[in-house]
Amino acid sequence: MIHSDGFRALDRQECLRLLGEVPVGRVVYTRHALPAVLPVNFTLDPDGSVVLCTSADSDLVRAVDGVVVAFEADDVHAGRRSGWSVVVTGRAAVVTDPAERERLLRTGPRSWMPLRRGVFVRIGSEMVTGRELTGADGRP
Amino acid sequence: MIHSDGFRALDRQECLRLLGEVPVGRVVYTRHALPAVLPVNFTLDPDGSVVLCTSADSDLVRAVDGVVVAFEADDVHAGRRSGWSVVVTGRAAVVTDPAERERLLRTGPRSWMPLRRGVFVRIGSEMVTGRELTGADGRP
Repeated sequence: MIHSDGFRALDRQECLRLLGEVPVGRVVYTRHALPAVLPVNFTLDPDGSVVLCTSADSDLVRAVDGVVVAFEADDVHAGRRSGWSVVVTGRAAVVTDPAERERLLRTGPRSWMPLRRGVFVRIGSEMVTGRELTGADGRP
Repeated sequence: MIHSDGFRALDRQECLRLLGEVPVGRVVYTRHALPAVLPVNFTLDPDGSVVLCTSADSDLVRAVDGVVVAFEADDVHAGRRSGWSVVVTGRAAVVTDPAERERLLRTGPRSWMPLRRGVFVRIGSEMVTGRELTGADGRP
């Protein structure tokens, strides 16, 4: 579907395929009643949920555990004015199930920082939206 | 300042210098009570405020005009596990002053899409924070 603003909406399958191609995305959440955003590396689970790895006592975990957040990834080429952007919106939760944690220790993301007490955070893929931009030019 | 999580906090001047090096960032806001995020190209005004260009009747303008939003840009190298991320948090407002609009028509950002009724949106730089990541490795 081409929108009047020139973007093509991507379907869920296209979105998940593109998400699988990039190592870094951004968690979008609320901190102290203000919008907040943090880039993180991640892996994608087969059901489309996003998995992060961070410290159990991090500000991020305190802010997002049990809360609906957005997770965004994109790949935009400024020179060509083209690219894509995908947003997964869903409930974030620390993985507490021991078997699930064991599986993620083998297959899940590694933190880029040494962690004292690391946890996995899963963001459910209740809503997956994306848009593709193909270059043009405009002045207001 | 090096945080215990391995990130170095960047000061305002460093943040604005880095922001000036990239053409695309992401507006983080709330839409229908859910977290939302949209990549956009932008320019930086001398006072550190971020200027975007979009359609007057866009969902984005309806959602952010008069509201505190975050604007994030980053440059993260997954291979080297290093990079930076900067967040500007401030009130977004459509530019209505004719002289200011005239100036931005010459020096401000161009939309990447043809616009029927374009407007500039300014995000004030009330709060500018940033972090630099230098590579490491961790497992939970």
